[in-house]
Amino acid sequence: MDVNVVNFKDKFSKIDELHSYKVIAQMNDYHFKIVKAKRDFIWHSHPETDEVFMVIHGNLQIDLKEKTLYLEEGEMVVIPRGVEHKPLCEEECHVMLIEPTGTVNTGNAGGDLTDDRVEWI
Amino acid sequence: MDVNVVNFKDKFSKIDELHSYKVIAQMNDYHFKIVKAKRDFIWHSHPETDEVFMVIHGNLQIDLKEKTLYLEEGEMVVIPRGVEHKPLCEEECHVMLIEPTGTVNTGNAGGDLTDDRVEWI
Repeated sequence: MDVNVVNFKDKFSKIDELHSYKVIAQMNDYHFKIVKAKRDFIWHSHPETDEVFMVIHGNLQIDLKEKTLYLEEGEMVVIPRGVEHKPLCEEECHVMLIEPTGTVNTGNAGGDLTDDRVEWI
Repeated sequence: MDVNVVNFKDKFSKIDELHSYKVIAQMNDYHFKIVKAKRDFIWHSHPETDEVFMVIHGNLQIDLKEKTLYLEEGEMVVIPRGVEHKPLCEEECHVMLIEPTGTVNTGNAGGDLTDDRVEWI
Protein backbone atom coordinates (compact mmCIF):
# COMPACT_ATOMS: atom_id res chain seq x y z
CA MET A 1 0.00 0.00 0.00
CA ASP A 2 1.43 3.35 -1.02
CA VAL A 3 1.07 6.15 1.50
CA ASN A 4 2.25 9.54 0.31
CA VAL A 5 2.35 13.09 1.58
CA VAL A 6 0.08 15.51 -0.30
CA ASN A 7 1.35 19.08 -0.68
CA PHE A 8 -1.52 21.44 -1.48
CA LYS A 9 0.44 24.08 -3.36
CA ASP A 10 2.25 21.43 -5.36
CA LYS A 11 -1.07 19.92 -6.39
CA PHE A 12 -2.52 23.30 -7.36
CA SER A 13 0.56 24.00 -9.49
CA LYS A 14 -0.47 21.06 -11.67
CA ILE A 15 -3.86 22.53 -12.55
CA ASP A 16 -3.93 24.75 -15.63
CA GLU A 17 -7.60 25.63 -15.95
CA LEU A 18 -10.26 27.20 -13.79
CA HIS A 19 -13.24 25.20 -12.50
CA SER A 20 -11.65 21.83 -13.11
CA TYR A 21 -12.06 19.75 -9.94
CA LYS A 22 -9.27 17.31 -9.13
CA VAL A 23 -9.21 14.65 -6.46
CA ILE A 24 -6.02 14.68 -4.40
CA ALA A 25 -6.85 12.26 -1.58
CA GLN A 26 -9.45 9.80 -0.34
CA MET A 27 -10.31 9.00 3.29
CA ASN A 28 -12.77 6.10 3.55
CA ASP A 29 -15.60 7.15 1.20
CA TYR A 30 -14.71 10.85 1.20
CA HIS A 31 -12.83 12.74 -1.47
CA PHE A 32 -10.52 15.70 -0.99
CA LYS A 33 -10.97 17.76 -4.15
CA ILE A 34 -9.24 20.96 -5.19
CA VAL A 35 -10.32 23.61 -7.64
CA LYS A 36 -9.07 26.95 -8.91
CA ALA A 37 -12.14 29.14 -9.11
CA LYS A 38 -13.02 32.59 -10.31
CA ARG A 39 -16.75 32.77 -10.73
CA ASP A 40 -20.07 33.50 -9.16
CA PHE A 41 -21.52 30.02 -8.68
CA ILE A 42 -25.18 29.04 -8.47
CA TRP A 43 -27.42 28.62 -5.45
CA HIS A 44 -27.64 24.97 -4.48
CA SER A 45 -27.66 22.57 -1.55
CA HIS A 46 -26.66 18.98 -0.87
CA PRO A 47 -29.65 17.34 0.79
CA GLU A 48 -27.69 14.19 1.62
CA THR A 49 -24.45 15.50 3.11
CA ASP A 50 -22.48 18.21 4.86
CA GLU A 51 -19.70 19.74 2.77
CA VAL A 52 -16.39 21.32 3.79
CA PHE A 53 -14.77 24.26 2.03
CA MET A 54 -11.16 25.02 2.94
CA VAL A 55 -9.28 27.95 1.43
CA ILE A 56 -5.67 27.27 0.43
CA HIS A 57 -5.11 30.58 -1.35
CA GLY A 58 -7.14 33.71 -2.02
CA ASN A 59 -10.58 34.69 -0.83
CA LEU A 60 -13.84 32.79 -0.99
CA GLN A 61 -17.24 34.26 -0.31
CA ILE A 62 -20.16 31.95 0.42
CA ASP A 63 -23.60 33.47 0.46
CA LEU A 64 -26.15 31.79 2.68
CA LYS A 65 -29.78 32.82 2.82
CA GLU A 66 -29.33 34.54 6.18
CA LYS A 67 -25.75 35.79 5.98
CA THR A 68 -22.54 35.88 3.98
CA LEU A 69 -19.35 34.04 4.94
CA TYR A 70 -15.89 35.36 4.01
CA LEU A 71 -13.05 32.87 4.03
CA GLU A 72 -9.34 33.38 3.46
CA GLU A 73 -6.28 31.14 3.50
CA GLY A 74 -6.18 29.00 6.64
CA GLU A 75 -9.93 28.93 7.10
CA MET A 76 -12.69 26.40 6.54
CA VAL A 77 -16.42 26.07 6.94
CA VAL A 78 -18.84 23.17 7.12
CA ILE A 79 -21.97 23.80 5.09
CA PRO A 80 -24.60 21.56 6.69
CA ARG A 81 -26.67 19.24 4.57
CA GLY A 82 -29.65 20.92 3.01
CA VAL A 83 -28.38 24.46 3.53
CA GLU A 84 -28.61 26.60 0.40
CA HIS A 85 -25.30 28.26 -0.45
CA LYS A 86 -23.70 30.18 -3.31
CA PRO A 87 -19.88 30.29 -3.51
CA LEU A 88 -18.23 33.29 -5.14
CA CYS A 89 -14.59 34.04 -5.95
CA GLU A 90 -14.17 37.53 -7.35
CA GLU A 91 -10.48 36.86 -7.91
CA GLU A 92 -8.91 33.46 -8.48
CA CYS A 93 -9.04 31.42 -5.31
CA HIS A 94 -7.77 27.95 -4.54
CA VAL A 95 -10.21 25.86 -2.60
CA MET A 96 -10.25 22.33 -1.21
CA LEU A 97 -13.58 20.56 -0.84
CA ILE A 98 -14.13 17.55 1.42
CA GLU A 99 -17.26 15.55 0.73
CA PRO A 100 -18.48 12.02 0.12
CA THR A 101 -17.45 10.42 -3.14
CA GLY A 102 -20.13 11.04 -5.75
CA THR A 103 -21.11 14.45 -4.41
CA VAL A 104 -21.82 16.70 -7.38
CA ASN A 105 -20.78 20.35 -7.41
CA THR A 106 -24.21 21.72 -8.24
CA GLY A 107 -26.04 19.54 -5.69
CA ASN A 108 -29.80 19.70 -6.02
CA ALA A 109 -29.70 22.47 -8.61
CA GLY A 110 -28.16 20.68 -11.58
CA GLY A 111 -27.72 22.68 -14.75
CA ASP A 112 -24.91 23.56 -17.14
CA LEU A 113 -22.24 23.99 -14.46
CA THR A 114 -22.65 20.42 -13.23
CA ASP A 115 -19.36 18.53 -13.27
CA ASP A 116 -19.36 14.98 -11.98
CA ARG A 117 -15.99 13.91 -13.37
CA VAL A 118 -13.61 12.23 -10.96
CA GLU A 119 -10.05 12.99 -12.03
CA TRP A 120 -7.09 12.44 -9.77
CA ILE A 121 -3.88 14.42 -9.83
CA MET B 1 -28.63 26.69 12.21
CA ASP B 2 -25.39 28.51 12.88
CA VAL B 3 -22.75 28.24 10.18
CA ASN B 4 -19.42 29.83 11.04
CA VAL B 5 -16.00 30.19 9.52
CA VAL B 6 -13.24 28.31 11.37
CA ASN B 7 -9.80 29.94 11.42
CA PHE B 8 -7.13 27.38 12.22
CA LYS B 9 -4.58 29.72 13.78
CA ASP B 10 -7.25 31.39 15.86
CA LYS B 11 -8.37 28.00 17.19
CA PHE B 12 -4.80 26.98 18.02
CA SER B 13 -4.28 30.24 19.90
CA LYS B 14 -6.95 29.10 22.34
CA ILE B 15 -5.08 25.93 23.32
CA ASP B 16 -2.67 26.28 26.23
CA GLU B 17 -1.40 22.77 26.73
CA LEU B 18 0.28 20.12 24.65
CA HIS B 19 -1.48 16.89 23.68
CA SER B 20 -4.96 18.17 24.42
CA TYR B 21 -7.18 17.35 21.46
CA LYS B 22 -9.93 19.82 20.64
CA VAL B 23 -12.76 19.43 18.15
CA ILE B 24 -13.18 22.45 15.89
CA ALA B 25 -15.68 21.19 13.32
CA GLN B 26 -17.94 18.30 12.41
CA MET B 27 -18.87 17.09 8.93
CA ASN B 28 -21.51 14.35 9.03
CA ASP B 29 -20.04 11.82 11.47
CA TYR B 30 -16.46 13.06 11.14
CA HIS B 31 -14.60 15.30 13.56
CA PHE B 32 -11.92 17.85 12.72
CA LYS B 33 -9.63 17.83 15.75
CA ILE B 34 -6.56 19.92 16.44
CA VAL B 35 -3.66 19.29 18.76
CA LYS B 36 -0.40 20.93 19.72
CA ALA B 37 2.09 18.12 19.95
CA LYS B 38 5.70 17.66 20.97
CA ARG B 39 6.28 14.01 21.63
CA ASP B 40 7.23 10.67 20.22
CA PHE B 41 3.90 8.87 20.06
CA ILE B 42 3.29 5.12 20.17
CA TRP B 43 2.90 2.66 17.32
CA HIS B 44 -0.76 2.01 16.64
CA SER B 45 -3.32 1.56 13.90
CA HIS B 46 -7.03 2.15 13.40
CA PRO B 47 -8.47 -1.11 12.07
CA GLU B 48 -11.84 0.48 11.34
CA THR B 49 -10.95 3.71 9.55
CA ASP B 50 -8.58 5.81 7.47
CA GLU B 51 -7.22 8.87 9.27
CA VAL B 52 -6.05 12.24 7.93
CA PHE B 53 -3.19 14.25 9.38
CA MET B 54 -2.85 17.85 8.18
CA VAL B 55 -0.04 20.12 9.36
CA ILE B 56 -1.03 23.68 10.19
CA HIS B 57 2.32 24.71 11.69
CA GLY B 58 5.67 23.04 12.26
CA ASN B 59 6.92 19.63 11.23
CA LEU B 60 5.37 16.22 11.73
CA GLN B 61 7.14 12.94 11.17
CA ILE B 62 5.10 9.77 10.80
CA ASP B 63 6.96 6.50 10.88
CA LEU B 64 5.40 3.65 8.94
CA LYS B 65 6.79 0.14 8.97
CA GLU B 66 8.23 0.50 5.48
CA LYS B 67 9.13 4.21 5.34
CA THR B 68 9.02 7.54 7.13
CA LEU B 69 6.80 10.47 6.10
CA TYR B 70 7.82 14.08 6.71
CA LEU B 71 5.05 16.68 6.68
CA GLU B 72 5.21 20.43 6.97
CA GLU B 73 2.68 23.25 6.90
CA GLY B 74 0.34 22.92 3.92
CA GLU B 75 0.64 19.16 3.70
CA MET B 76 -1.56 16.20 4.61
CA VAL B 77 -1.53 12.45 4.46
CA VAL B 78 -4.18 9.75 4.65
CA ILE B 79 -3.10 6.83 6.83
CA PRO B 80 -5.16 3.91 5.57
CA ARG B 81 -7.13 1.78 7.98
CA GLY B 82 -5.05 -0.90 9.60
CA VAL B 83 -1.70 0.65 8.74
CA GLU B 84 0.65 0.86 11.72
CA HIS B 85 2.02 4.36 12.25
CA LYS B 86 3.93 6.35 14.84
CA PRO B 87 3.66 10.16 14.80
CA LEU B 88 6.58 12.20 16.11
CA CYS B 89 7.00 15.95 16.62
CA GLU B 90 10.54 16.79 17.75
CA GLU B 91 9.52 20.44 18.12
CA GLU B 92 6.02 21.69 18.82
CA CYS B 93 3.80 21.15 15.81
CA HIS B 94 0.18 22.04 15.20
CA VAL B 95 -1.76 19.25 13.59
CA MET B 96 -5.35 18.78 12.45
CA LEU B 97 -6.80 15.28 12.42
CA ILE B 98 -9.87 14.28 10.42
CA GLU B 99 -11.48 11.02 11.44
CA PRO B 100 -14.83 9.50 12.37
CA THR B 101 -16.32 10.60 15.68
CA GLY B 102 -15.28 8.20 18.39
CA THR B 103 -11.87 7.45 16.88
CA VAL B 104 -9.38 7.19 19.73
CA ASN B 105 -5.86 8.58 19.44
CA THR B 106 -4.09 5.36 20.39
CA GLY B 107 -6.22 3.17 18.13
CA ASN B 108 -5.66 -0.55 18.67
CA ALA B 109 -2.76 0.01 21.06
CA GLY B 110 -4.52 1.58 24.04
CA GLY B 111 -2.37 2.44 27.04
CA ASP B 112 -1.63 5.48 29.15
CA LEU B 113 -1.64 7.98 26.29
CA THR B 114 -5.23 7.14 25.35
CA ASP B 115 -7.43 10.23 25.32
CA ASP B 116 -11.04 9.79 24.29
CA ARG B 117 -12.36 13.12 25.53
CA VAL B 118 -14.42 15.16 23.10
CA GLU B 119 -13.96 18.83 23.87
CA TRP B 120 -14.95 21.57 21.46
CA ILE B 121 -13.29 24.94 21.18
